[in-house]
Amino acid sequence: MTTFPKRIALLGSTGSIGRQTLDVVRQFPEHFRIISLAARSNIALLAQQVEEFKPQLVACSAETPELERAATEALPGVILGKQGLTAAATHSDVDIVVAATSGLMALEPTLAAIEAGKTIAVANKETLVMAGHLVMAAAKRNNVHIFPVDSEHSAIWQCLRGEENADIHHLIITASGGPFRHATLEQMQSVTIEQALAHPTWRMGPKITIDSSTLMNKGLEVIEAHWLFDIPYERIKVVVQPESIIHSMVEFVDGSIKMQASLPSMHLPIMNALTYPHRLQVADSGLIRELHWADVARLNFEALDIARFPCFRLALEAAKRGGTYPCVLVGADEEAVDLFLHGKIKLLEIAELIESVLEQHTSVVHPSVAETLETCAWARRMTQELYQTKLRKLL
Amino acid sequence: MTTFPKRIALLGSTGSIGRQTLDVVRQFPEHFRIISLAARSNIALLAQQVEEFKPQLVACSAETPELERAATEALPGVILGKQGLTAAATHSDVDIVVAATSGLMALEPTLAAIEAGKTIAVANKETLVMAGHLVMAAAKRNNVHIFPVDSEHSAIWQCLRGEENADIHHLIITASGGPFRHATLEQMQSVTIEQALAHPTWRMGPKITIDSSTLMNKGLEVIEAHWLFDIPYERIKVVVQPESIIHSMVEFVDGSIKMQASLPSMHLPIMNALTYPHRLQVADSGLIRELHWADVARLNFEALDIARFPCFRLALEAAKRGGTYPCVLVGADEEAVDLFLHGKIKLLEIAELIESVLEQHTSVVHPSVAETLETCAWARRMTQELYQTKLRKLL
Repeated sequence: MTTFPKRIALLGSTGSIGRQTLDVVRQFPEHFRIISLAARSNIALLAQQVEEFKPQLVACSAETPELERAATEALPGVILGKQGLTAAATHSDVDIVVAATSGLMALEPTLAAIEAGKTIAVANKETLVMAGHLVMAAAKRNNVHIFPVDSEHSAIWQCLRGEENADIHHLIITASGGPFRHATLEQMQSVTIEQALAHPTWRMGPKITIDSSTLMNKGLEVIEAHWLFDIPYERIKVVVQPESIIHSMVEFVDGSIKMQASLPSMHLPIMNALTYPHRLQVADSGLIRELHWADVARLNFEALDIARFPCFRLALEAAKRGGTYPCVLVGADEEAVDLFLHGKIKLLEIAELIESVLEQHTSVVHPSVAETLETCAWARRMTQELYQTKLRKLL
Repeated sequence: MTTFPKRIALLGSTGSIGRQTLDVVRQFPEHFRIISLAARSNIALLAQQVEEFKPQLVACSAETPELERAATEALPGVILGKQGLTAAATHSDVDIVVAATSGLMALEPTLAAIEAGKTIAVANKETLVMAGHLVMAAAKRNNVHIFPVDSEHSAIWQCLRGEENADIHHLIITASGGPFRHATLEQMQSVTIEQALAHPTWRMGPKITIDSSTLMNKGLEVIEAHWLFDIPYERIKVVVQPESIIHSMVEFVDGSIKMQASLPSMHLPIMNALTYPHRLQVADSGLIRELHWADVARLNFEALDIARFPCFRLALEAAKRGGTYPCVLVGADEEAVDLFLHGKIKLLEIAELIESVLEQHTSVVHPSVAETLETCAWARRMTQELYQTKLRKLL
């Protein structure tokens, strides 16, 4: 049974999911209490959030001396570095940890929170993609729930309420198809950063928006779904649903399909993770707009054209090979997307770089946390190296 | 906990739902056993079914002396009349009664089965429309489950698994819109019986097919949903979904919508009612075809144009007025559809006749079973009278 108020540790409070989590908390002050806030570099916003939500603990991972200084000045009592995130996640008053930092930063604090018996609302794909085997095993051992925050996984989770896992035939993850759904490979050669950042249905941070344009994001979601719902890859499908109204589906063994829908909104999956098994009354809150079917008028469904989205193929290959390959995928993708966002490579070169790095890799079976992080760091370095080599060849 | 084999009483075994129920039983002989079979007039088919499924009890309601004679000859040990249906429904070996007779015949046997503690799979709309107050009260008193077989209600029921009733914001019943979805009122004036029987997505018996063309059927489904899920009429919506892929939806208080989908099939809701909370593996059985979203390609949604479908409006008015008005609706509609199917009135005159009969009626509050059946019989007579009066005026 859930008791309110739910006491929350919010890791990544200044990012897109973090800010929307605080929208929900602001809307339902009687249901939630912010125990700890943690962010990386947006110290001004973090200070504002501290002022508003008065957490018991503030952490800032502040990766440079300048950021450390700024954080210490602006946030009295702040705990710096990764130990700050871990302290925030394991605070004894916390019921649920919203893991919404980007990248790898969340892995160790999340594992520590699981060991401390906290429920995890996971909005950070990398954690499960790289270390799903460690996270899910720890959750099982500690009898801890891992709740999804991604809209697709939240949809599947909602469709699975009251159902038995053994009755799942397929998970069907929907994809908007991103801005290049109908672009030819030739057109995709010359895509600008602005075009890749112009997602047709969702507003998100830059890294995930680029990952959505290459469909790497959808590949990561397949891996995440595999770990969250314990379903083999052969039974996870992807279908393009360009309007982003159907957030995903479950097909059961009897042929019945359940799907979850809403207007695109991250507030809804955040609320679901925070209030499960309850649902909050949002009418008139302005937080979530009601969907009128006659206005929607039409939903389209298309097969995913894998040939035009090599990142999606690479993700699934890495997933099926297992071991440290998914860590290479995550690390190489982070670095390659960064290169693209800095105008140094073309969109299609993201997949080329990742594929080259994957080819260079020798995998470890059942990697530890340290091996996971080392592999990821290795993949970032190797991506840089391959980029520099390519650059030198061109000069 | 469900134990298999489920032991079934099948009322209306020779009708469309009855035959499809036997398809399911035939496919999964280890899961189901037919204890009793009951039909009305198709004695040849009933005899075949008896031969195949070897029930312990056979009943035939045989409403004429000719049918009684034929039944007695063809079916040794057959129990005739309404008491046959009741004996079939209350047989001590029965776990679940599939109430799939058409019309009013099922009401008393269903109530008797509830008193005997049987689970009811209700495929007969009239029972709940006319006597929902009696059926649901009896079910509650006897701690008996009423499971839906209609595809729309099965969809809602599936979406509600693991959810709390208090979290329902709206039930959204989908409608194919029938063959006259885009017809003008003028075009509907001159509709032929063949046109009205040509349903675009579902193959059903003639009465329900005509009710689908006038959307009376959708009105009856709203009333059925009201009783099954205990939701006020203001919170039940109808939306046109012409492909009949989405069978209905539930919108929750947090704005999340769950929907159930499949290719049109009655085997699926029948199976759901027979096996809840389990689902049977149908792959390769040929019973239910897998839905491929890329083949579906597009789902449309439209508002229902009530002005062109007066039967739908009449159903909702009768429902909201309550008392014996829904009994009048059912009786007058049965008679009027019969007149239409015999070529005696036009399609739009069905609504005119029903409206006139409703206007003549003085309602009883909380009608008993006897009052329910009497009102329905009165409504049929009154419909005939009004038709005859109209006919005399025209001559």
